[in-house]
Amino acid sequence: MHTTAASQQATSGLLYDQIATELEALIAGGTFRPGDRIPSVRGLAKQRRVSVATVLQAYRGLENKGLIEARPQSGYFVAARSWRHPLEPATSRPAKRATQVNVSELIMRVMQATHDPSLIRLGAALPSPELLPTVQLNRCLASAGRRPNPLAANYSIPPGNPALRTQIAKRAMDAGCSLSPDEIVTTCGAMEALYLCLRAVTKPGDTVAIESPSYFGVLQCIESLGLKALEIPTHPRDGLSLEALAYALDAQRVHACLFVLNFNNPLGCCMPDAQKEKLVAMLAERGIPLIEDDIYGDLSFSDPRPRTAKSFDRQGMVLLCDSFSKTLAPGYRVGWCAPGRWQRSVEHLKMVTTVATATLPQIAIADFLANGGYNHHLRRIRRLYAEKVRLVSQAIGHFFPEETRITRPSGGYVLWVELPENVDSLELFDRALAAGISIAPGPIFSAKGKFRNFIRLNCGNPWSAPIERAIESLGRMTRQLAGE
Amino acid sequence: MHTTAASQQATSGLLYDQIATELEALIAGGTFRPGDRIPSVRGLAKQRRVSVATVLQAYRGLENKGLIEARPQSGYFVAARSWRHPLEPATSRPAKRATQVNVSELIMRVMQATHDPSLIRLGAALPSPELLPTVQLNRCLASAGRRPNPLAANYSIPPGNPALRTQIAKRAMDAGCSLSPDEIVTTCGAMEALYLCLRAVTKPGDTVAIESPSYFGVLQCIESLGLKALEIPTHPRDGLSLEALAYALDAQRVHACLFVLNFNNPLGCCMPDAQKEKLVAMLAERGIPLIEDDIYGDLSFSDPRPRTAKSFDRQGMVLLCDSFSKTLAPGYRVGWCAPGRWQRSVEHLKMVTTVATATLPQIAIADFLANGGYNHHLRRIRRLYAEKVRLVSQAIGHFFPEETRITRPSGGYVLWVELPENVDSLELFDRALAAGISIAPGPIFSAKGKFRNFIRLNCGNPWSAPIERAIESLGRMTRQLAGE
Repeated sequence: MHTTAASQQATSGLLYDQIATELEALIAGGTFRPGDRIPSVRGLAKQRRVSVATVLQAYRGLENKGLIEARPQSGYFVAARSWRHPLEPATSRPAKRATQVNVSELIMRVMQATHDPSLIRLGAALPSPELLPTVQLNRCLASAGRRPNPLAANYSIPPGNPALRTQIAKRAMDAGCSLSPDEIVTTCGAMEALYLCLRAVTKPGDTVAIESPSYFGVLQCIESLGLKALEIPTHPRDGLSLEALAYALDAQRVHACLFVLNFNNPLGCCMPDAQKEKLVAMLAERGIPLIEDDIYGDLSFSDPRPRTAKSFDRQGMVLLCDSFSKTLAPGYRVGWCAPGRWQRSVEHLKMVTTVATATLPQIAIADFLANGGYNHHLRRIRRLYAEKVRLVSQAIGHFFPEETRITRPSGGYVLWVELPENVDSLELFDRALAAGISIAPGPIFSAKGKFRNFIRLNCGNPWSAPIERAIESLGRMTRQLAGE
Repeated sequence: MHTTAASQQATSGLLYDQIATELEALIAGGTFRPGDRIPSVRGLAKQRRVSVATVLQAYRGLENKGLIEARPQSGYFVAARSWRHPLEPATSRPAKRATQVNVSELIMRVMQATHDPSLIRLGAALPSPELLPTVQLNRCLASAGRRPNPLAANYSIPPGNPALRTQIAKRAMDAGCSLSPDEIVTTCGAMEALYLCLRAVTKPGDTVAIESPSYFGVLQCIESLGLKALEIPTHPRDGLSLEALAYALDAQRVHACLFVLNFNNPLGCCMPDAQKEKLVAMLAERGIPLIEDDIYGDLSFSDPRPRTAKSFDRQGMVLLCDSFSKTLAPGYRVGWCAPGRWQRSVEHLKMVTTVATATLPQIAIADFLANGGYNHHLRRIRRLYAEKVRLVSQAIGHFFPEETRITRPSGGYVLWVELPENVDSLELFDRALAAGISIAPGPIFSAKGKFRNFIRLNCGNPWSAPIERAIESLGRMTRQLAGE
C-alpha cells in the first residue's frame, strides 16, 4: 500500500509517537538491552511504510531521553547506561472551588533556601550558569554603553526599546505568532509582564483559572492582588484538561485564565497545538482573556518548538508573556508581553509601576538577537537540557523508592516528583536543608497546600558528583520517611 | 558686643538669610546696579558683627542665583546680566476632600510629548544629559560584566545587591540618616519604591495625603491602586503646611502620607529640617506611615544638603524612597527604599512584582559610589543646576507677562510658573506643541485638575539659543492667550 506525501505528513506526528513508544517499551522490557543495535532507520521506515524523516524524528526523541545513542557509520544502539524510567504521576485533582491563596510565608522560606549559594540548589528553577551566554551578552552590554547614543542613558518609556521590540516580533514567528513591534511592551522580566497583565484584566476579588500544580510566583502574584485562584486538573504530559476547564467555566464565573502551556513549571507538560487552538476559541467565545506565560517555550527538546496559544488569537484576547531569564540572563531582568487589546492599559500600568525597563540591558539583548547567536545558542542548550533532565531522572530511578513517579518533560529543566504517599515533602525539605540541599516542596505549587508528597527538582545545574550524591541523599531520606 | 562662637553658629543660618535677602532687595531696587561693587566680605562681616563664613555663605547663595559674581582679587560685583526676578506664587489652596484621581489620559498625552526627542523638551523633569557621568558609569557596567562573578548573571533577589545596599547606607548619613544595609531594598527606580511602599501600607479605598501640587507620577500611582488623594496646601518655598495637615488629619481618616519634602516636584520647595522633625512626631503620634520621596534631595543648591524626615524617625514609621535617576542614570532604573517596619512586606511585594532589580546596573552604581566619584560629581552638578535654574528664571522674567510668578527653588531643576489668571495652560500646551516645544501643563499636578493657569518648566537642558528662543515663544504665546 502506498500513501501519498500529503496524508503521510498529516499522520506523521502520530506515527512518530507510535514508533517511539513502541521502542521505549521494548527497551524497558529488555527486548533491546544496553549496547544492542536497534533497527536501522531505513529498514524500519520501509517496514512500517513511513518516511525516513518520521523514524529519524522518533529516534532523536529517544536519543534526547538518553535511551539510545547514535554511533557514526554504525546506526543506533541502546545507551550503555540505560535505566528504568519511573512512572509518570496522574492528572492532578485540585479543589473545585476558587480559593484565596495563602502560601506566601512558606514560599519566602523556600525562596531564601533556593537562592542560598552555599547549598546544593535543586530547589530554584534556575538556568544552568554554564549554559548562559554571559560573556557574549555582557560584551554586548559594554559595547552598547560605549556607543554614542544620547537616548541610551535615558528612560526607555513604554512600550520600551524599539530595537528590542523589533527583534522580539521577528522571533515570535518561531512560535507561529505574527506580531508587530507596536504590539509589544518590554518589562522587568516575565514576572512584571504577568503582573501587569493580571492587573489589566482583573480587579480585586476576581477569579483566575490556573493549572494545578502552578508556579508559586503566579500564586503569590494572585494572592498579592487580592484575586482568587481556581485550579484546573492538568495532565503531566498533555497539560491542562480542556474538558475540566469547560466544566469549571460553566460552573462559575472566571474573569481570566493564566496558563503555562509549553513546558509548564513544575510539570514540564506541553499542550498539543491543536488543543491550544481549541482553548483559544473556547475562551474567546466566552469573552475570557487568556494570559499565556511562555518562558519555557524556547527550551523545547525537539525542533521546531511548539506554538503559543497567542498564535491562534484573532481577537486580541490572549496576553502573551515571556522573558529572556531562562535562556539568556536572569539578572538582566528583561521580559516582554504582547497584551492584545489591553496594550494601552498595560503601557499605562507599566509607567506607574516601574516607569521603564533598564535601557542598556534591552539594547544588549536586542544586539545579541540581531547578530544571530540566539538560534545557535538555543539548539545547543535544548540538547544539553534534555541530557540534564535525563541524568537527574536516571538518578531518581536509581536512588528513590520504587513507587516514586516522575514527569517526562519535553522541554524546560524541572522535574515533578511524586514520592510515596506517606512521605511529607515539608519534612523532607527540612531534612534536606540540614544536609545542605535545597528542594521545592509540593505544597508551594498549590493555592490549597496540596501535593504534600511531591517535590520539584531543578535539573539546571552542571551535572557533577556532588549533585548525584545529593540526589542519592534525597533518595535515602525519602526511603526513611516512607518507613522502608 | 561680642557673641560667642556657639551662639554665633546657632544663629548664622538666620543671619545668612537676612544678609542675602537684604542685598537681593538692594539689587532689585537699584541701589546696587549691574557692574557695581558690593561691600567686601570682611567689611560687611565686621559691620554686622558676624563671621566671615556667614557673609561668604550669603554671597555664594546670591552668586548661585546669578545676582552677583566674584572677580579675582577685586571682590564681588552685581552681575552684568542682572534682572528682575518675578514674584513667587502663593500657597496652594486645594480641595478639602479626598478625591478619586483621574488624570491619566491627559498625563499619557503629556508624557508622550515630553519624551519626544524631536521637540524642545521643557516638559519632562529629565536631568541634563551632559551632567550625567554616563561614560564613567557605563565603564563601571562593562567592568562589572567582565569580572568573574557567578552571581552577576543571576537574580539579585530582595532585598537586592549587598554591595549597593552598603553604599546606600553609607551615603544616607549625608541626609542625617542612620541605616544598616539590611534596612534597604533596591528597586527598579524610585517609582517602584513608591509603588511598593504604597501597596505595603494601604489597601484599595484608603486615603493618602499628598502635597498640592504633586508630581503626576504619584497621582497616577495612587489612581492605579484605587486609592484616594487628599491634597494639602503647600507653600512654594517652605513646603507643606503642617497646620493644614494637622487640620486635615483631625477632619478625616488618612491612612498614609506621601510627601516630597526636599525640592518637591514641581514646586522646588524645601521643608525646613525643624519642621520635618515636627511632621514625623505628628504622624507617629497618630500611627500614620509617611512615605518620603527624596529623589531631588542630593540636588540641593547649598551644602550640606537638607536632612530627610527619615532621619528623625525612631519608630520605623517613615518609608524613605530614592533613586539614582536624577543624579546618575535615569536609564539604569536603580532605586531603593528603606521601608522601616514594612521591610518584610516590601521585600515580598518586590518579589511578586518584578522579582529583582537588574543585577549589573546595581553593581555598576555600587562601584561608582565606592570609588568616590559621587561627591565630586554632586558638587559640580549642584552648582550647574543652580545656574540653569537662574538662566531659565531670567528668561521668563524677560519674556513673560509681568504678572507671571515663578518659584525660587533651592534645589532640583524644575520651575513652577503661575501665568496670568486667564491663561489656560492646556491651550498653551497645544500651541507650544504645534511650535515644537513640550511643556507640562498645571492640571496634571492635581487630582482635581486644578492649576489651570500654571505650567512646569524643566531647566535640565543644556542652555542654548534654541532653548532661549523657545522660552521667548512661550512668553509670546502666553501674552496672546492673556489678551495683551
